Amino acid sequence: MADAVDEMMSADRASGALGMEVLEHGGGRARVRMRVRPDMVNGHDVAHGGLVFALADTAFACACNSVAAPTLAAAAEIAFVAPARAGDELVAEAALRTSFGRNGIYDVTVRRGDQVIAEFRGRSHHVAREPR
Amino acid sequence: MADAVDEMMSADRASGALGMEVLEHGGGRARVRMRVRPDMVNGHDVAHGGLVFALADTAFACACNSVAAPTLAAAAEIAFVAPARAGDELVAEAALRTSFGRNGIYDVTVRRGDQVIAEFRGRSHHVAREPR
Amino acid sequence: MADAVDEMMSADRASGALGMEVLEHGGGRARVRMRVRPDMVNGHDVAHGGLVFALADTAFACACNSVAAPTLAAAAEIAFVAPARAGDELVAEAALRTSFGRNGIYDVTVRRGDQVIAEFRGRSHHVAREPR
Amino acid sequence: MADAVDEMMSADRASGALGMEVLEHGGGRARVRMRVRPDMVNGHDVAHGGLVFALADTAFACACNSVAAPTLAAAAEIAFVAPARAGDELVAEAALRTSFGRNGIYDVTVRRGDQVIAEFRGRSHHVAREPR
Repeated sequence: MADAVDEMMSADRASGALGMEVLEHGGGRARVRMRVRPDMVNGHDVAHGGLVFALADTAFACACNSVAAPTLAAAAEIAFVAPARAGDELVAEAALRTSFGRNGIYDVTVRRGDQVIAEFRGRSHHVAREPR
Repeated sequence: MADAVDEMMSADRASGALGMEVLEHGGGRARVRMRVRPDMVNGHDVAHGGLVFALADTAFACACNSVAAPTLAAAAEIAFVAPARAGDELVAEAALRTSFGRNGIYDVTVRRGDQVIAEFRGRSHHVAREPR
Repeated sequence: MADAVDEMMSADRASGALGMEVLEHGGGRARVRMRVRPDMVNGHDVAHGGLVFALADTAFACACNSVAAPTLAAAAEIAFVAPARAGDELVAEAALRTSFGRNGIYDVTVRRGDQVIAEFRGRSHHVAREPR
Repeated sequence: MADAVDEMMSADRASGALGMEVLEHGGGRARVRMRVRPDMVNGHDVAHGGLVFALADTAFACACNSVAAPTLAAAAEIAFVAPARAGDELVAEAALRTSFGRNGIYDVTVRRGDQVIAEFRGRSHHVAREPR
């Protein structure tokens, strides 16, 4: 049976176009995979930071919408720990850190195998209805 | 005559694939434009936060590499102020806020016309050579 | 005539105990001064980062409560640019960057003379009444 | 036998003046306690955000200097989850999240009993010698 995250992701054309695959989600957690394609590298020949962020952001969205939907990202920060390359398979793992009122703080780690690529922290806000 | 930013951007396949266009750059500043395509929206039918971040991140890269190249993003944070939609034309404007040693702090505002869509702050690090 | 910021600051025992002085405030801006006392340095013999943050946070509070009171800090980030020492006089200058709904984003720069000591960005939230 | 953190803290006049007590430290972790005194509240009658930050920052310093000293805070962000009051006893618990080169990312949670008061994330930088 499709849940709120499945429905959200089936309508998420951006994550689809970037080849992201949700490995699991539920209970404030999610894991999402993306392979770095040759058209995802920047002028320094490493994965564009925005696309590493996008992977983390999608994992964040799956984790927080597994708790209550619709929930939106209000803010996020990311630290780039190591560069990723074309061909690398990245997995973003998101987990709820704390929730308060309609807000949540989620930590997302992006890894290539055991190597940490980026650390992301996002703040979510649960809304009464879809944004207009 | 092509400068370091022009060379960097001509090799930036990710920004190219997302349709970004550098409007101007130099002296620690840059402006970059991107139209939100139908394949850039998420499951809430608004521009994917990762792609709004990517636009800001590219403007940040153009601004900091206009001062000294190669300079990489070490970390960044973004606040999502208002949603953007398919068809919207977004412009990210980056400016150096302060520099210290090999580090820089840059502010980037993403707008649709006069409306602020997101506020981004990035920290850059100038490196001796390209990352490996 | 005392305004909301004057009233807030006269009740702010923490800022008073740290010797902070509001130089000016109004229209989403504020400037606050603090001298680094010998009991404000940490184990590396530089001003404790928490007290530099506290100075910026008070300037932020004065700026955002000059727009609408009561307004609270929801989150903030700070980059430490240069160390400050006992005896240094620091001035934090806060300015509204953008506002949306009940939220605001403020930038605060802490300086010793012309030297930047820290860059702070805070997110405020205007509330209907004082927190309980 | 006094270690690098003990020596650092015995010289940390700011943390001492704020009544902070290191409960434990070692292996990239630390716990620090502080009671909110009446002179630590702000004009909204809640613990000044700067002093909550200072507590988290000291726990962060103890955790990262337990790995390698001297290590300094380069940047940090904090989300204020719930207000604290005069008389509250707060405990900040810091843990290394990831390290890379001379840099580290640490998470610090400030609690009053089981209630989360603030979530802090800091980035540290190990330096060759004390700052001048």
